[in-house]
Amino acid sequence: MAGFSLDYSRYRVPTDGKFSLGDIDPGDSQGLVKERDGQEVEERLARIQARLDELQQRLFAESKQALLLVLQGMDTSGKDNAIRRVIAPFNPMACRVTNFKSPSHAEQVRDFLWRVHSHVPRKGSIGVFNRSHYEDVLIARVHGLAPPDLIEKRYDHINDFEKMLADHGTRIVKVMLHISKDYQLERLKRRLKRADKRWKFFPEDLRDRKRWDDYMEAYNIALQRCSTTYAPWYVIPAQNRWLRNLLISRLLLDILEDMDPQFPEAQFDPADYPPEKIT
Amino acid sequence: MAGFSLDYSRYRVPTDGKFSLGDIDPGDSQGLVKERDGQEVEERLARIQARLDELQQRLFAESKQALLLVLQGMDTSGKDNAIRRVIAPFNPMACRVTNFKSPSHAEQVRDFLWRVHSHVPRKGSIGVFNRSHYEDVLIARVHGLAPPDLIEKRYDHINDFEKMLADHGTRIVKVMLHISKDYQLERLKRRLKRADKRWKFFPEDLRDRKRWDDYMEAYNIALQRCSTTYAPWYVIPAQNRWLRNLLISRLLLDILEDMDPQFPEAQFDPADYPPEKIT
Repeated sequence: MAGFSLDYSRYRVPTDGKFSLGDIDPGDSQGLVKERDGQEVEERLARIQARLDELQQRLFAESKQALLLVLQGMDTSGKDNAIRRVIAPFNPMACRVTNFKSPSHAEQVRDFLWRVHSHVPRKGSIGVFNRSHYEDVLIARVHGLAPPDLIEKRYDHINDFEKMLADHGTRIVKVMLHISKDYQLERLKRRLKRADKRWKFFPEDLRDRKRWDDYMEAYNIALQRCSTTYAPWYVIPAQNRWLRNLLISRLLLDILEDMDPQFPEAQFDPADYPPEKIT
Repeated sequence: MAGFSLDYSRYRVPTDGKFSLGDIDPGDSQGLVKERDGQEVEERLARIQARLDELQQRLFAESKQALLLVLQGMDTSGKDNAIRRVIAPFNPMACRVTNFKSPSHAEQVRDFLWRVHSHVPRKGSIGVFNRSHYEDVLIARVHGLAPPDLIEKRYDHINDFEKMLADHGTRIVKVMLHISKDYQLERLKRRLKRADKRWKFFPEDLRDRKRWDDYMEAYNIALQRCSTTYAPWYVIPAQNRWLRNLLISRLLLDILEDMDPQFPEAQFDPADYPPEKIT
């Protein structure tokens, strides 16, 4: 087994605003090749998942901190598959995925943070946003779904909101799954060819695809303005799906280890409840 | 590998009210022995889970039906572990567990179905209630948390509510994890002995334990009055944990196969989108 070291820190968006999506190659594999390294990647993933499992148990038992993972990415970037592979190992009792689609009427007639606020993870649990409040500075910006001056204010609203969550014990990490326009083309074609994937294709997807550059600009602005010390953005190359899952899992592992959740003390004096005296 | 056939229909509570918990042995293993049959049970479970995975994909794609699993059981009956093992294989994107604890103030000042209603699964998804509205005829009955005449009415309220959900496309199945009082004693002692389990022990658990017979009576009444054709109850022997998971998984599989979800037709004329013409 060839040893290799994997680095995701290079994908962290700095908090000083100096960042361009163009700096990160969506096909980056850090020199790894699936044929040669794929098996070790899978083995490492399995080991990481075993540790994630243990840390989640502690997080749940402790119930003092929460973890929120925000996932964004263009259509076909693999958000759903990443959730399936990266999130599935967690105990579903204390892990909840929320898929944000087009806002309902009740959501449209309120501020843009209202609907996400009601889905933030409770202490002891892990929340995953599959799309998020960032749509309100992405699709909303590209398609002019809100007045431009209001959209401008939303970056601050987001930072303030995330700061408040962080102050209350929620660790936030945000991941953009990064792909190229060419890669999306391949994936869309694949969807159209496979009978069991065709239902995922919507003609509207092509309208968004035509605005690709505008989307990348909107992402760039959001990444530059909303990567903070308390809620950093990571731009994860997503075209090597076999590697992407390991990168995200490793990122989550390091965060959970840093959160260092502990089994709580018993809520009673063990001397009062000797096991042999229970009837 | 010894072949065996497994039957869970014997655990189904009839809809005519003729049922007694005493009829079902919480240690029943249908003649199977862990040492001899455990491996085949694990292998069958893996095969069933692969099929559940595929059916869930179809359910999600179709988005016309939902599945609700209600899990009830005394403390230490293994609800949490069952969720971990039986539910974990589902794609978390379309599966949500809701843990119902003591009601909050906002919940207490409303009818007892209000809080569960807001957590019913959306079409295309699977919902799991870890405890449920049945607590309002179990603990509420045993500890007198509501006027007796109101509790009497709740059985009908529950049946009406579940019928309404069923009429709107939600398939409901309810599982009681059945254990004996002696078995609970073993499990409680184990909790007290293990440092990583002790946090799960609360002195209140012993108070409920003292009311064991009252709880069994309350369960009996709920099972007799609320097992319906559209929302049947199953009393699953839960002391053989290795077998319990297979029984529940098999039950879910048969239900999902009966629901028979289908990948939807494409929302467009494929002739309009030849893959080679997409750019």
